[in-house]
Amino acid sequence: MNEINLDDYIYKVPDFPKKGILFYDITGVLTTPKAFSYCIDRMVEIYKDKKFDAVAAIEARGFIFAAPFAYRIGLPLILVRKKGKLPRKTTSETFELEYGTAEIELNHEDIRKGDKILMIDDLIATGGTLRAARKLLTSAGAVVPEIFGIIGLPFFEYDKKLSGITVTTLIDYNAE
Amino acid sequence: MNEINLDDYIYKVPDFPKKGILFYDITGVLTTPKAFSYCIDRMVEIYKDKKFDAVAAIEARGFIFAAPFAYRIGLPLILVRKKGKLPRKTTSETFELEYGTAEIELNHEDIRKGDKILMIDDLIATGGTLRAARKLLTSAGAVVPEIFGIIGLPFFEYDKKLSGITVTTLIDYNAE
Repeated sequence: MNEINLDDYIYKVPDFPKKGILFYDITGVLTTPKAFSYCIDRMVEIYKDKKFDAVAAIEARGFIFAAPFAYRIGLPLILVRKKGKLPRKTTSETFELEYGTAEIELNHEDIRKGDKILMIDDLIATGGTLRAARKLLTSAGAVVPEIFGIIGLPFFEYDKKLSGITVTTLIDYNAE
Repeated sequence: MNEINLDDYIYKVPDFPKKGILFYDITGVLTTPKAFSYCIDRMVEIYKDKKFDAVAAIEARGFIFAAPFAYRIGLPLILVRKKGKLPRKTTSETFELEYGTAEIELNHEDIRKGDKILMIDDLIATGGTLRAARKLLTSAGAVVPEIFGIIGLPFFEYDKKLSGITVTTLIDYNAE
Protein backbone atom coordinates (compact mmCIF):
# COMPACT_ATOMS: atom_id res chain seq x y z
CA MET A 1 0.00 0.00 0.00
CA ASN A 2 1.39 3.38 -0.98
CA GLU A 3 1.80 5.77 1.93
CA ILE A 4 0.40 9.21 1.36
CA ASN A 5 -0.29 12.26 3.47
CA LEU A 6 -4.08 12.23 3.50
CA ASP A 7 -4.22 15.82 4.70
CA ASP A 8 -2.83 16.96 1.33
CA TYR A 9 -6.09 15.84 -0.33
CA ILE A 10 -8.62 17.24 2.15
CA TYR A 11 -9.70 20.78 1.26
CA LYS A 12 -10.52 23.05 4.19
CA VAL A 13 -13.37 25.27 3.06
CA PRO A 14 -14.29 28.17 5.35
CA ASP A 15 -17.90 29.30 5.82
CA PHE A 16 -19.53 26.19 4.34
CA PRO A 17 -22.34 25.25 4.55
CA LYS A 18 -22.73 28.46 6.57
CA LYS A 19 -20.67 31.29 8.00
CA GLY A 20 -18.29 30.28 10.76
CA ILE A 21 -18.14 26.59 9.82
CA LEU A 22 -14.86 25.16 8.48
CA PHE A 23 -15.84 22.33 6.14
CA TYR A 24 -13.51 19.36 5.59
CA ASP A 25 -14.06 18.43 1.97
CA ILE A 26 -13.17 14.89 0.86
CA THR A 27 -13.73 15.47 -2.86
CA GLY A 28 -9.98 15.95 -3.32
CA VAL A 29 -9.50 12.41 -1.99
CA LEU A 30 -12.05 11.12 -4.49
CA THR A 31 -10.50 12.84 -7.50
CA THR A 32 -7.06 11.42 -6.62
CA PRO A 33 -7.08 7.64 -7.20
CA LYS A 34 -4.01 6.99 -5.03
CA ALA A 35 -5.62 8.85 -2.11
CA PHE A 36 -8.98 7.11 -2.49
CA SER A 37 -7.43 3.65 -2.79
CA TYR A 38 -5.22 4.45 0.22
CA CYS A 39 -8.41 5.04 2.28
CA ILE A 40 -10.15 1.87 1.15
CA ASP A 41 -7.01 -0.26 1.50
CA ARG A 42 -6.43 1.09 5.03
CA MET A 43 -10.03 0.25 5.95
CA VAL A 44 -9.56 -3.32 4.70
CA GLU A 45 -6.28 -3.61 6.63
CA ILE A 46 -7.90 -2.34 9.85
CA TYR A 47 -10.98 -4.58 9.71
CA LYS A 48 -9.97 -7.67 7.74
CA ASP A 49 -9.48 -9.87 10.82
CA LYS A 50 -12.47 -8.55 12.76
CA LYS A 51 -15.64 -10.51 12.37
CA PHE A 52 -18.47 -8.26 11.27
CA ASP A 53 -21.72 -9.46 9.71
CA ALA A 54 -22.53 -6.29 7.80
CA VAL A 55 -21.50 -2.72 7.05
CA ALA A 56 -23.94 0.19 7.55
CA ALA A 57 -23.40 3.23 5.34
CA ILE A 58 -24.65 6.69 6.32
CA GLU A 59 -26.12 8.74 3.45
CA ALA A 60 -24.66 10.26 1.38
CA ARG A 61 -20.87 10.59 1.66
CA GLY A 62 -20.72 7.49 3.85
CA PHE A 63 -21.86 5.51 0.80
CA ILE A 64 -18.69 6.50 -1.07
CA PHE A 65 -16.36 4.81 1.42
CA ALA A 66 -18.64 2.04 2.70
CA ALA A 67 -19.48 0.65 -0.76
CA PRO A 68 -15.90 -0.08 -1.94
CA PHE A 69 -15.06 -1.41 1.52
CA ALA A 70 -18.07 -3.76 1.56
CA TYR A 71 -17.17 -4.87 -1.96
CA ARG A 72 -13.54 -5.56 -1.03
CA ILE A 73 -14.31 -7.36 2.22
CA GLY A 74 -17.42 -9.20 0.97
CA LEU A 75 -19.95 -8.05 3.57
CA PRO A 76 -23.61 -7.04 3.13
CA LEU A 77 -24.08 -3.28 2.76
CA ILE A 78 -26.97 -1.75 4.71
CA LEU A 79 -28.08 1.80 3.89
CA VAL A 80 -29.07 4.33 6.52
CA ARG A 81 -30.90 6.94 4.49
CA LYS A 82 -32.61 10.27 4.85
CA LYS A 83 -36.36 10.17 5.40
CA GLY A 84 -38.48 9.11 2.44
CA LYS A 85 -35.71 7.53 0.36
CA LEU A 86 -36.02 3.86 1.31
CA PRO A 87 -38.87 1.74 -0.05
CA ARG A 88 -40.30 -1.22 1.88
CA LYS A 89 -40.86 -1.20 5.63
CA THR A 90 -38.65 1.17 7.57
CA THR A 91 -38.03 2.32 11.09
CA SER A 92 -36.97 5.92 11.62
CA GLU A 93 -35.16 8.02 14.16
CA THR A 94 -35.22 11.78 14.59
CA PHE A 95 -32.19 13.64 15.91
CA GLU A 96 -31.21 17.22 16.58
CA LEU A 97 -29.12 19.35 14.30
CA GLU A 98 -27.67 22.73 15.15
CA TYR A 99 -30.90 24.24 13.89
CA GLY A 100 -33.96 21.98 13.75
CA THR A 101 -34.06 18.20 13.39
CA ALA A 102 -33.38 15.51 10.81
CA GLU A 103 -34.76 12.02 10.35
CA ILE A 104 -33.04 8.86 9.09
CA GLU A 105 -34.48 5.51 8.12
CA LEU A 106 -33.51 1.85 7.94
CA ASN A 107 -34.96 -1.27 6.32
CA HIS A 108 -34.99 -3.01 9.69
CA GLU A 109 -36.08 -6.33 8.16
CA ASP A 110 -32.63 -6.61 6.55
CA ILE A 111 -31.03 -6.90 10.01
CA ARG A 112 -30.78 -10.32 11.64
CA LYS A 113 -30.88 -10.51 15.41
CA GLY A 114 -27.33 -10.41 16.78
CA ASP A 115 -25.74 -9.04 13.58
CA LYS A 116 -22.46 -7.36 14.40
CA ILE A 117 -22.37 -4.20 12.33
CA LEU A 118 -19.62 -1.70 11.46
CA MET A 119 -21.02 1.79 10.78
CA ILE A 120 -19.18 3.94 8.24
CA ASP A 121 -19.35 7.65 7.50
CA ASP A 122 -16.90 10.06 5.92
CA LEU A 123 -16.56 12.43 8.87
CA ILE A 124 -17.35 12.19 12.59
CA ALA A 125 -18.04 15.46 14.41
CA THR A 126 -20.78 15.62 17.06
CA GLY A 127 -21.77 12.00 16.44
CA GLY A 128 -25.47 12.92 16.36
CA THR A 129 -26.28 11.16 13.09
CA LEU A 130 -24.25 8.11 14.06
CA ARG A 131 -25.93 7.87 17.46
CA ALA A 132 -29.34 7.92 15.77
CA ALA A 133 -28.15 5.32 13.22
CA ARG A 134 -26.87 3.07 15.99
CA LYS A 135 -30.23 3.35 17.73
CA LEU A 136 -32.00 2.22 14.53
CA LEU A 137 -29.62 -0.71 14.11
CA THR A 138 -29.75 -1.86 17.73
CA SER A 139 -33.54 -1.50 17.81
CA ALA A 140 -33.58 -3.91 14.85
CA GLY A 141 -31.56 -6.41 16.88
CA ALA A 142 -27.99 -5.65 15.80
CA VAL A 143 -24.95 -4.79 17.86
CA VAL A 144 -22.74 -1.90 16.73
CA PRO A 145 -19.38 -2.17 18.46
CA GLU A 146 -17.40 -0.03 16.03
CA ILE A 147 -17.63 3.06 13.85
CA PHE A 148 -15.23 4.14 11.14
CA GLY A 149 -14.79 7.60 9.65
CA ILE A 150 -12.14 8.94 7.29
CA ILE A 151 -11.99 12.22 9.26
CA GLY A 152 -12.52 12.79 12.97
CA LEU A 153 -13.19 16.14 14.63
CA PRO A 154 -12.82 15.15 18.29
CA PHE A 155 -13.23 18.74 19.51
CA PHE A 156 -16.94 18.34 18.68
CA GLU A 157 -16.90 15.67 21.42
CA TYR A 158 -18.39 12.78 19.47
CA ASP A 159 -17.14 10.49 22.26
CA LYS A 160 -20.00 11.80 24.44
CA LYS A 161 -22.70 10.71 22.01
CA LEU A 162 -20.90 7.50 20.99
CA SER A 163 -19.88 6.13 24.39
CA GLY A 164 -19.16 2.41 24.46
CA ILE A 165 -18.30 2.31 20.75
CA THR A 166 -14.80 2.03 19.31
CA VAL A 167 -14.30 4.92 16.88
CA THR A 168 -11.50 4.68 14.31
CA THR A 169 -10.52 7.47 11.92
CA LEU A 170 -7.68 7.91 9.44
CA ILE A 171 -7.05 11.56 10.25
CA ASP A 172 -8.14 13.91 13.04
CA TYR A 173 -8.32 17.68 13.13
CA ASN A 174 -8.34 19.88 16.19
CA ALA A 175 -10.19 23.13 16.74
CA GLU A 176 -8.69 26.16 15.05
CA MET B 1 -16.85 -14.13 -12.07
CA ASN B 2 -19.84 -15.95 -10.63
CA GLU B 3 -22.92 -15.75 -12.81
CA ILE B 4 -26.09 -14.75 -11.02
CA ASN B 5 -29.60 -13.77 -11.99
CA LEU B 6 -29.56 -10.11 -11.01
CA ASP B 7 -33.35 -9.91 -11.16
CA ASP B 8 -33.53 -12.19 -8.10
CA TYR B 9 -32.02 -9.41 -5.98
CA ILE B 10 -34.02 -6.44 -7.24
CA TYR B 11 -37.17 -5.86 -5.22
CA LYS B 12 -40.15 -4.47 -7.11
CA VAL B 13 -41.98 -2.17 -4.73
CA PRO B 14 -45.40 -0.88 -5.86
CA ASP B 15 -46.59 2.64 -5.05
CA PHE B 16 -43.20 4.05 -4.04
CA PRO B 17 -42.34 6.87 -3.73
CA LYS B 18 -45.97 7.54 -4.68
CA LYS B 19 -49.10 5.74 -5.82
CA GLY B 20 -48.85 4.22 -9.28
CA ILE B 21 -45.04 4.08 -9.40
CA LEU B 22 -43.32 0.69 -9.39
CA PHE B 23 -39.96 1.21 -7.69
CA TYR B 24 -36.96 -0.99 -8.57
CA ASP B 25 -35.09 -1.32 -5.31
CA ILE B 26 -31.39 -2.22 -5.44
CA THR B 27 -30.95 -2.68 -1.67
CA GLY B 28 -31.31 -6.45 -2.14
CA VAL B 29 -28.26 -6.31 -4.41
CA LEU B 30 -26.32 -4.42 -1.75
CA THR B 31 -27.18 -6.80 1.07
CA THR B 32 -26.05 -9.79 -1.04
CA PRO B 33 -22.26 -9.66 -1.47
CA LYS B 34 -22.24 -12.00 -4.47
CA ALA B 35 -24.81 -9.83 -6.28
CA PHE B 36 -23.01 -6.58 -5.45
CA SER B 37 -19.61 -7.92 -6.51
CA TYR B 38 -21.20 -9.29 -9.68
CA CYS B 39 -22.30 -5.74 -10.59
CA ILE B 40 -18.92 -4.14 -9.88
CA ASP B 41 -16.98 -6.92 -11.61
CA ARG B 42 -19.22 -6.66 -14.68
CA MET B 43 -18.66 -2.89 -14.80
CA VAL B 44 -14.89 -3.42 -14.68
CA GLU B 45 -15.13 -6.06 -17.42
CA ILE B 46 -17.21 -3.76 -19.65
CA TYR B 47 -15.01 -0.66 -19.27
CA LYS B 48 -11.51 -1.93 -18.52
CA ASP B 49 -10.22 -1.48 -22.08
CA LYS B 50 -12.00 1.82 -22.74
CA LYS B 51 -9.99 4.91 -22.04
CA PHE B 52 -11.86 7.19 -19.66
CA ASP B 53 -10.28 10.00 -17.67
CA ALA B 54 -12.81 10.07 -14.85
CA VAL B 55 -16.06 8.65 -13.51
CA ALA B 56 -18.99 10.91 -12.56
CA ALA B 57 -21.34 9.60 -9.87
CA ILE B 58 -24.92 10.82 -9.54
CA GLU B 59 -26.12 11.37 -5.95
CA ALA B 60 -27.04 9.31 -4.01
CA ARG B 61 -27.44 5.72 -5.23
CA GLY B 62 -25.05 6.35 -8.10
CA PHE B 63 -22.30 6.80 -5.48
CA ILE B 64 -22.78 3.20 -4.35
CA PHE B 65 -21.82 1.71 -7.71
CA ALA B 66 -19.49 4.42 -9.01
CA ALA B 67 -17.23 4.43 -5.93
CA PRO B 68 -16.22 0.73 -5.99
CA PHE B 69 -15.87 0.91 -9.77
CA ALA B 70 -13.60 3.98 -9.61
CA TYR B 71 -11.59 2.28 -6.86
CA ARG B 72 -11.19 -0.92 -8.89
CA ILE B 73 -10.33 0.79 -12.15
CA GLY B 74 -8.20 3.59 -10.64
CA LEU B 75 -10.00 6.60 -12.08
CA PRO B 76 -10.84 9.95 -10.41
CA LEU B 77 -14.36 10.05 -8.98
CA ILE B 78 -16.35 13.23 -9.62
CA LEU B 79 -19.55 13.84 -7.62
CA VAL B 80 -22.69 15.29 -9.15
CA ARG B 81 -24.66 16.36 -6.09
CA LYS B 82 -27.96 17.86 -5.11
CA LYS B 83 -27.99 21.61 -4.64
CA GLY B 84 -26.18 22.96 -1.59
CA LYS B 85 -24.12 19.87 -0.82
CA LEU B 86 -20.83 20.66 -2.58
CA PRO B 87 -18.41 23.20 -1.10
CA ARG B 88 -16.08 25.28 -3.27
CA LYS B 89 -17.08 26.79 -6.59
CA THR B 90 -19.89 25.00 -8.36
CA THR B 91 -21.95 25.24 -11.50
CA SER B 92 -25.56 24.12 -11.34
CA GLU B 93 -28.26 22.88 -13.63
CA THR B 94 -32.00 22.81 -13.05
CA PHE B 95 -34.15 20.11 -14.62
CA GLU B 96 -37.77 19.09 -14.60
CA LEU B 97 -39.24 16.35 -12.48
CA GLU B 98 -42.72 14.93 -12.80
CA TYR B 99 -43.83 17.63 -10.38
CA GLY B 100 -41.61 20.68 -10.04
CA THR B 101 -37.88 20.94 -10.60
CA ALA B 102 -34.60 19.79 -9.08
CA GLU B 103 -31.11 21.23 -9.18
CA ILE B 104 -27.74 19.49 -9.29
CA GLU B 105 -24.23 20.84 -8.88
CA LEU B 106 -20.66 20.11 -9.92
CA ASN B 107 -17.22 21.32 -8.84
CA HIS B 108 -16.45 22.33 -12.40
CA GLU B 109 -12.82 23.21 -11.54
CA ASP B 110 -12.15 19.50 -11.05
CA ILE B 111 -12.80 18.87 -14.76
CA ARG B 112 -9.94 19.28 -17.23
CA LYS B 113 -10.77 20.37 -20.76
CA GLY B 114 -11.26 17.29 -22.93
CA ASP B 115 -11.70 14.85 -20.04
CA LYS B 116 -13.56 11.78 -21.25
CA ILE B 117 -16.06 10.93 -18.54
CA LEU B 118 -18.24 7.90 -17.82
CA MET B 119 -21.42 8.83 -15.92
CA ILE B 120 -22.81 6.25 -13.50
CA ASP B 121 -26.20 5.96 -11.80
CA ASP B 122 -28.08 3.01 -10.37
CA LEU B 123 -31.15 3.30 -12.61
CA ILE B 124 -31.92 5.05 -15.89
CA ALA B 125 -35.55 5.96 -16.56
CA THR B 126 -36.42 9.29 -18.23
CA GLY B 127 -32.76 10.32 -18.32
CA GLY B 128 -33.61 13.79 -17.02
CA THR B 129 -31.05 13.86 -14.23
CA LEU B 130 -28.36 12.36 -16.46
CA ARG B 131 -29.03 14.88 -19.21
CA ALA B 132 -28.62 17.72 -16.73
CA ALA B 133 -25.45 16.10 -15.36
CA ARG B 134 -24.02 15.73 -18.85
CA LYS B 135 -24.72 19.40 -19.50
CA LEU B 136 -22.81 20.35 -16.35
CA LEU B 137 -19.87 18.16 -17.36
CA THR B 138 -19.72 19.29 -20.97
CA SER B 139 -20.07 22.96 -19.94
CA ALA B 140 -16.97 22.36 -17.80
CA GLY B 141 -15.10 21.13 -20.89
CA ALA B 142 -15.56 17.35 -20.64
CA VAL B 143 -16.95 14.91 -23.14
CA VAL B 144 -19.44 12.27 -21.95
CA PRO B 145 -19.64 9.50 -24.52
CA GLU B 146 -21.07 6.82 -22.23
CA ILE B 147 -23.47 6.27 -19.36
CA PHE B 148 -23.78 3.19 -17.21
CA GLY B 149 -26.73 2.13 -15.05
CA ILE B 150 -27.37 -1.13 -13.24
CA ILE B 151 -31.06 -1.01 -14.23
CA GLY B 152 -32.62 0.43 -17.39
CA LEU B 153 -36.29 1.30 -17.88
CA PRO B 154 -36.31 1.97 -21.62
CA PHE B 155 -40.10 2.43 -21.70
CA PHE B 156 -39.48 5.82 -20.06
CA GLU B 157 -37.64 6.65 -23.30
CA TYR B 158 -34.34 7.79 -21.85
CA ASP B 159 -32.89 7.48 -25.35
CA LYS B 160 -34.72 10.70 -26.28
CA LYS B 161 -33.00 12.75 -23.58
CA LEU B 162 -29.64 10.98 -23.96
CA SER B 163 -29.24 10.96 -27.72
CA GLY B 164 -25.68 10.53 -28.95
CA ILE B 165 -24.59 8.76 -25.78
CA THR B 166 -23.93 5.03 -25.45
CA VAL B 167 -26.07 3.71 -22.59
CA THR B 168 -25.16 0.38 -21.01
CA THR B 169 -27.21 -1.39 -18.33
CA LEU B 170 -26.98 -4.80 -16.68
CA ILE B 171 -30.72 -5.46 -16.66
CA ASP B 172 -33.72 -3.84 -18.33
CA TYR B 173 -37.39 -3.91 -17.39
CA ASN B 174 -40.31 -3.23 -19.66
CA ALA B 175 -43.59 -1.52 -18.85
CA GLU B 176 -46.09 -3.55 -16.85
